[in-house]
Amino acid sequence: MLSKNQIKLIKSLGQKKHRQQEELFIVEGIKGINEFLNSEFELDQLYTTQPIFEIADNKVVFINENQLKRISSLKNPNTALAIFKIPESKPPVESDLTVVLDDVRDPGNLGTIIRLCDWYGIRQIICSTNTVDCFNQKVVQATMGSLTRVNIYYTDLRDFLKSTDLEVLGTFMNGENIYTAKLPEKGLIILGNEANGISIGIEELIDRKITIPQFGDLKNTESLNVANATAIVLSEFKRRFIEK
Amino acid sequence: MLSKNQIKLIKSLGQKKHRQQEELFIVEGIKGINEFLNSEFELDQLYTTQPIFEIADNKVVFINENQLKRISSLKNPNTALAIFKIPESKPPVESDLTVVLDDVRDPGNLGTIIRLCDWYGIRQIICSTNTVDCFNQKVVQATMGSLTRVNIYYTDLRDFLKSTDLEVLGTFMNGENIYTAKLPEKGLIILGNEANGISIGIEELIDRKITIPQFGDLKNTESLNVANATAIVLSEFKRRFIEK
Repeated sequence: MLSKNQIKLIKSLGQKKHRQQEELFIVEGIKGINEFLNSEFELDQLYTTQPIFEIADNKVVFINENQLKRISSLKNPNTALAIFKIPESKPPVESDLTVVLDDVRDPGNLGTIIRLCDWYGIRQIICSTNTVDCFNQKVVQATMGSLTRVNIYYTDLRDFLKSTDLEVLGTFMNGENIYTAKLPEKGLIILGNEANGISIGIEELIDRKITIPQFGDLKNTESLNVANATAIVLSEFKRRFIEK
Repeated sequence: MLSKNQIKLIKSLGQKKHRQQEELFIVEGIKGINEFLNSEFELDQLYTTQPIFEIADNKVVFINENQLKRISSLKNPNTALAIFKIPESKPPVESDLTVVLDDVRDPGNLGTIIRLCDWYGIRQIICSTNTVDCFNQKVVQATMGSLTRVNIYYTDLRDFLKSTDLEVLGTFMNGENIYTAKLPEKGLIILGNEANGISIGIEELIDRKITIPQFGDLKNTESLNVANATAIVLSEFKRRFIEK
């Protein structure tokens, strides 16, 4: 059975305000739900059309396909929708390389960046308070489970950068060529907003500007998508370790 | 004035079948339209709410904001919508590095890959016939004008690969580590479908398999998004030139 109140709660979790009030967020699909079940995240409630998850009975509500369609935000809902508890935010720890996001707004971009960090073994991302919420459903879907392995911490970036002893690098159009620059093994790498790049208040606090150079004879491309820029930057930092 | 027939034509160009029949496609927004106007592409008709484009009067139809909303496929239409002619397909030419796509289906991914190729100076992409149409509106929007600088050629990939003398590399989960492998300066790099990777019929025709390795101690990430994989592969091939 699916009650009106349950439907109302699930729908409300589409909004950041309600996610923060309820301290809950949504994961959809078998694979994604299993990744969260096998992690430190705590299940609140599971709505499923099939008895395929090994969890306590009091956490499960069986529903039919029509009910799933009603509560799902996906075009093609996949078997189940789960509500998990938003854990307490873990402050960043000392680490080799940390990705810092200055107002990344697109959920798909943040989701992809979380997945990339997971791939490159980066266990934390520090986000400005205006960066899109990592428990937004589109972000959660785009991370493909990587959100269970990467800690996302939201904070006032200026305060954070003022207090760090680590080298602070930022991606700009007019910095050192990332391919020929000497890169540090430890540090913070800042990537900026989709339309405006890194904001002026943050730029002041950056130690070194780096650039992914354009190739070829035309050089008309306006910029790289921020998720692709992250892919290239992480690839370039990380490959230098294994060559040593 | 915007006639019923014009609206019908514009709407119909949302479908590949009609784009191919009419040999027309749509570009939206001031920046994108200007990139195509300044390229070899030929304008068919421009619908604009403002007189800001320098083109012949007989090609321009002035419309109001409501009419633009009616014909636009964007949430936030931007000033104008243009119809351009689909040019004749140019067969691939001998080149350093060519990207080959085996059934990439997501318009955003193809658009981003075109933009990446433009950034890295790669002037052609060869696509399997099942790869999403590059004149799909979402692809055109995602390329941010790069479609004017990169030639996209659709063909039977098996026939094409059988006839080439170039080295054929493909991205797999179990190939040589791309960071430590000796990479050729000339060749074809194949990237596969979002869900299934490179198909078996194409895998047979590949000379060398390469892999973007995972880092860190967890290594649970399922895969990288195909556009991010393209970003990393192109970065790695291209950086080796400038270090010489």
